[in-house]
Amino acid sequence: MTVNAGILNVTGYTGAELARLLHAHPDVRIAGVTGRSAAGKRLPEVYPHLWPIDLPITESLPDGVDVVLSTLPHAAAAEQLVPYIDAGVPVIDLSADFRLHKVEEYEAAYKTTHPAPHMLKTSVYGLPELHREQIARARAGAKLVAAPGCHSTGVILALAPLFAAGVIEPDVIADTKTGLSGAGRALDIKVHFSEADENVAPYGLDGHRHLPEMVQELGELAEAPQPRIAFVPHYTPMTRGILSTCYARAKDGKLHGDATIARGEIMTLFRDFYRDEPFVHVSDGAPSTKHVVGTNYCVVHPTVNLQAGGIVVASALDNLGKGASGAVVQCLNVMFGLDETAGLQSLGLFP
Amino acid sequence: MTVNAGILNVTGYTGAELARLLHAHPDVRIAGVTGRSAAGKRLPEVYPHLWPIDLPITESLPDGVDVVLSTLPHAAAAEQLVPYIDAGVPVIDLSADFRLHKVEEYEAAYKTTHPAPHMLKTSVYGLPELHREQIARARAGAKLVAAPGCHSTGVILALAPLFAAGVIEPDVIADTKTGLSGAGRALDIKVHFSEADENVAPYGLDGHRHLPEMVQELGELAEAPQPRIAFVPHYTPMTRGILSTCYARAKDGKLHGDATIARGEIMTLFRDFYRDEPFVHVSDGAPSTKHVVGTNYCVVHPTVNLQAGGIVVASALDNLGKGASGAVVQCLNVMFGLDETAGLQSLGLFP
Amino acid sequence: MTVNAGILNVTGYTGAELARLLHAHPDVRIAGVTGRSAAGKRLPEVYPHLWPIDLPITESLPDGVDVVLSTLPHAAAAEQLVPYIDAGVPVIDLSADFRLHKVEEYEAAYKTTHPAPHMLKTSVYGLPELHREQIARARAGAKLVAAPGCHSTGVILALAPLFAAGVIEPDVIADTKTGLSGAGRALDIKVHFSEADENVAPYGLDGHRHLPEMVQELGELAEAPQPRIAFVPHYTPMTRGILSTCYARAKDGKLHGDATIARGEIMTLFRDFYRDEPFVHVSDGAPSTKHVVGTNYCVVHPTVNLQAGGIVVASALDNLGKGASGAVVQCLNVMFGLDETAGLQSLGLFP
Amino acid sequence: MTVNAGILNVTGYTGAELARLLHAHPDVRIAGVTGRSAAGKRLPEVYPHLWPIDLPITESLPDGVDVVLSTLPHAAAAEQLVPYIDAGVPVIDLSADFRLHKVEEYEAAYKTTHPAPHMLKTSVYGLPELHREQIARARAGAKLVAAPGCHSTGVILALAPLFAAGVIEPDVIADTKTGLSGAGRALDIKVHFSEADENVAPYGLDGHRHLPEMVQELGELAEAPQPRIAFVPHYTPMTRGILSTCYARAKDGKLHGDATIARGEIMTLFRDFYRDEPFVHVSDGAPSTKHVVGTNYCVVHPTVNLQAGGIVVASALDNLGKGASGAVVQCLNVMFGLDETAGLQSLGLFP
Repeated sequence: MTVNAGILNVTGYTGAELARLLHAHPDVRIAGVTGRSAAGKRLPEVYPHLWPIDLPITESLPDGVDVVLSTLPHAAAAEQLVPYIDAGVPVIDLSADFRLHKVEEYEAAYKTTHPAPHMLKTSVYGLPELHREQIARARAGAKLVAAPGCHSTGVILALAPLFAAGVIEPDVIADTKTGLSGAGRALDIKVHFSEADENVAPYGLDGHRHLPEMVQELGELAEAPQPRIAFVPHYTPMTRGILSTCYARAKDGKLHGDATIARGEIMTLFRDFYRDEPFVHVSDGAPSTKHVVGTNYCVVHPTVNLQAGGIVVASALDNLGKGASGAVVQCLNVMFGLDETAGLQSLGLFP
Repeated sequence: MTVNAGILNVTGYTGAELARLLHAHPDVRIAGVTGRSAAGKRLPEVYPHLWPIDLPITESLPDGVDVVLSTLPHAAAAEQLVPYIDAGVPVIDLSADFRLHKVEEYEAAYKTTHPAPHMLKTSVYGLPELHREQIARARAGAKLVAAPGCHSTGVILALAPLFAAGVIEPDVIADTKTGLSGAGRALDIKVHFSEADENVAPYGLDGHRHLPEMVQELGELAEAPQPRIAFVPHYTPMTRGILSTCYARAKDGKLHGDATIARGEIMTLFRDFYRDEPFVHVSDGAPSTKHVVGTNYCVVHPTVNLQAGGIVVASALDNLGKGASGAVVQCLNVMFGLDETAGLQSLGLFP
Repeated sequence: MTVNAGILNVTGYTGAELARLLHAHPDVRIAGVTGRSAAGKRLPEVYPHLWPIDLPITESLPDGVDVVLSTLPHAAAAEQLVPYIDAGVPVIDLSADFRLHKVEEYEAAYKTTHPAPHMLKTSVYGLPELHREQIARARAGAKLVAAPGCHSTGVILALAPLFAAGVIEPDVIADTKTGLSGAGRALDIKVHFSEADENVAPYGLDGHRHLPEMVQELGELAEAPQPRIAFVPHYTPMTRGILSTCYARAKDGKLHGDATIARGEIMTLFRDFYRDEPFVHVSDGAPSTKHVVGTNYCVVHPTVNLQAGGIVVASALDNLGKGASGAVVQCLNVMFGLDETAGLQSLGLFP
Repeated sequence: MTVNAGILNVTGYTGAELARLLHAHPDVRIAGVTGRSAAGKRLPEVYPHLWPIDLPITESLPDGVDVVLSTLPHAAAAEQLVPYIDAGVPVIDLSADFRLHKVEEYEAAYKTTHPAPHMLKTSVYGLPELHREQIARARAGAKLVAAPGCHSTGVILALAPLFAAGVIEPDVIADTKTGLSGAGRALDIKVHFSEADENVAPYGLDGHRHLPEMVQELGELAEAPQPRIAFVPHYTPMTRGILSTCYARAKDGKLHGDATIARGEIMTLFRDFYRDEPFVHVSDGAPSTKHVVGTNYCVVHPTVNLQAGGIVVASALDNLGKGASGAVVQCLNVMFGLDETAGLQSLGLFP
């Protein structure tokens, strides 16, 4: 079986990474790629590193694609994707448009009216580690999978086992450090080399749009009350990678008083939770973003800090891999019943 | 007045930075520089960028220095500095040996017997923002000033106004992101370029040695109970800079329910606390490490995150500047009654 | 057909990269990996990014391997490889031991006695673009292929078409800019992050060991007299990549007086020379190392600078890919009659 | 004496660096700063690292400045500077408008009509190492000093002693590697972090605008025929620094046949040429850009490569220091009879 996939908006970094990944996928064929401003050019004119993928960039996809993969920005995504869904073509969307179940949360975070609020009830949050069955069923049913935000994936995978087990208090801290490709290809002084090189800085101190989806997804796992997350992302001078450091406090009586035993118990909790996951690796040592560059893996490392009465979980992923385009391919694999790891077996480009 | 200063262990990065700063200091003369393994060489043979400081590296300082500035490692520092202090020569020490007041905390953190525990009662913690008068008196009195650790300075300056005002709960998080010069010049796979470049990773997950001094200094400002700090430092791919992100929770009733008003009140608290400080800049926007590279400044930015019920303070400094050698020069200036900013007026090397 | 390959010295960067590439190779099985200092450990203990390749590191390879791939350092390579060759096992060697045909050149460049000089007559220089047939025959015959040095590959591929066509004078300049993974994993102040970050510096100004192989290979293509190459490599602050800029002067009458026509003729010369090469891409625009990171491609771009009377050719490759481990896999494919691109189809990890 | 200096176009990187340098200059006062798009703001709003320089950005300079320092782009510079010069106010210009003596060379290189060609006869090329007396006289006379291009300074200082001594052939190669701050603050995909990070690439392969000034200045030193320079600049992933590697061929009989003696002779030639220069350091070892970051120094290292029959000279400078704003301050010092090193004594910010 070969899946004919169309990529909407191939000219951004996540679109280009999708093309790169699908080019090496044994069961997928790139049926077409779109890009408004670059329509009429060929893909290698925009991205020379993709010279063997000598496809024309068009304004719209050819007819007959089996699946639409979209890296359109939010709002634009919702508008352009609805016709495909209505026509029965499954869609995997990398924008924020269909991640949140509540339209009011979307509109508050994205400060725009949602173009297709009726679809929020059926869309599936594209994190196979939490929603594998729903994603599989979405091909025939909902037709719509919303791949997570890059920060969200790192934070949710770091905290999910703890909330699911009911061992932590609802107040948690998520401090993330991201590579700058997460800001996309658009020109901006924040990612001007001379300003961003040799610089670490927080951003979104007044609130970041990925926060509601973290709360939603962890909240579905947690007992009441809902998680409260203080989330601060930071720019770091590298291209790819997100390191998420999450701080939680154990509920009374949930953490053994001996640090070694407590660490072992928490490690077991994580190992059990991710036992069958092909792309989550619970590591013995502290994770490094460079170990997962170019891959679809997320490395998670939990530890216990009894002195401060808490649990610290660090996770590492590639924001363009498991944090974006890799996740789309993983969802595609699940959705079409392919080997979940097909096209995603590359190991980290280290060093 | 010219102060004749001797530098012990000029061959490490903090020693070289001290030489660089003092070379441009209008009131200080470098009387001599030592370095065990490099004794017999001239300083520019070890550090070509210091070619105009053509001093011999010797095994010991010449007689008659007015002050000894030490960048010796811990334990070695205590051993070599006691004779100077006993002889009445003031010392500013950049090691950890004399920062902590309690010998048991030192010995637990540094896993060694303290060579001169009797001096812990009189030594002064070299953060002028908290101990200016004591540092000034130390020239005639205690003779011993212990400059803070680089992470400690960033975290203490970020949290001091909050603990001093009694507005936060004792449990705080300090998540720091450091440039790699903080790891020193010794060869280590952690700072091998190919491994450290394009990489972010946490370290010290089981406890970092700078933690006790943070607790000590913030504890002196705080009401009981003592602060409990979950502190996790991270390596980031840059040479200089520390960005500290600190998360605190306001005590009940201490934070206004309106976010704008709450932010204004916290900002005023910080502006008042640091009103007369020449090297602490309370900024309107998020701080960037690159803005303070090569300087003795610390930029502090507090904000309020009502959604998560908390206060977030981010600070930026140069780990070799305000975090180390700059702090030594500032202490020297205070100790000798010089203009506190002498030799330290360089602005950030940006971009 | 599955080729059972053994890797000697998997613990260096080229060894680890070989393991990473072979893990994804459809027709090769890693039969064993050695590493003296790490023997007894498992591969992921040394390289966490290789966690799915959970092989033991042993002191010697298991019996029955079909091919030995060696990343041992020079001299050690010659000593350990001879027994395999004597036993009829084909070897691809990434050291410098068997690249040069003349033992006196080897001994002058490497300042050591060659352990197996008799094999220099039969060993094959492992650049398929120049010696494909010999590499293919080496499996049954010589048994010994010596993969090129990383700088050599970039320079030879940039200049080969010009020397082969007899259009340039023998005096050429090769100025290369290399990522620091080329210096290997051994600790050295030259690749200490704080010294190497934000730094460009030439090295080997008194002569670099890769020079003789450049002269040998280009000399075989050129008419007399032999090429004379002024070669200066430079460290640049990145992990992977070599950009080689080569300057040549056209022989009288060999360059059209109109710049546009001259450029077109030179471009045609290069396109013809590399017409059937799967891994050499003659580009229309200036090459960028980042476009080939993680790949086995070499991008070559020739241009004409009539003002200075010369031809400039720039090439880009990944020093650990086409410059080292990728080249070994390509040679293996040629040697064993596999698809030459098997396991090497990844496109550049950009951005 | 205090010199009142006005900065035109403070909002670019060279303008901001000028402000930073002058703020620390003992004999200069910043009388005003302009910037079209940012007029009305205060300087720290545009550049937070300059917060102690709390000046308003205005559309034009206040009356009565002693000297105008311009970092306006070419063409705009010529237009705006002529009125000052006509009014008798000395000007130091960092644009390319007044560097070339021949208007036709300017117009060919910059593809625009020169707005004030009559001034090309009197303007002084602002490289004190070659034109100190003229720069000093320009305050009273020509009123106009044109600071060199950043690549030009590195290449001219590397080759000047050789051309002046008449020991090399006219054909030389200049291969430069530049930090990205040289491209300025304007947004451009070439200096977008994700594209420029971990990347080395040549540019200007069809000719770079700095070439004519190199030929002009070296030509004035050389015997006929004029130098012919093949010049290729390269982007490297760092913010500040230019490493220039220059390749020359000795005239017959000008280089001793023994490499050690030849090296000594060339080294003596350079040491003699730069004996009294405060900002040119002839080094024993290979230069590193990081050794001069933040300074006005240029490190020059000549060597001999007898194997290739040539001389190689490498130079390192900070493109924003000696390559731009530092050079402006040095010219100002010479012009106003100040200590030539005033305000420029900072040593390299290493590491």
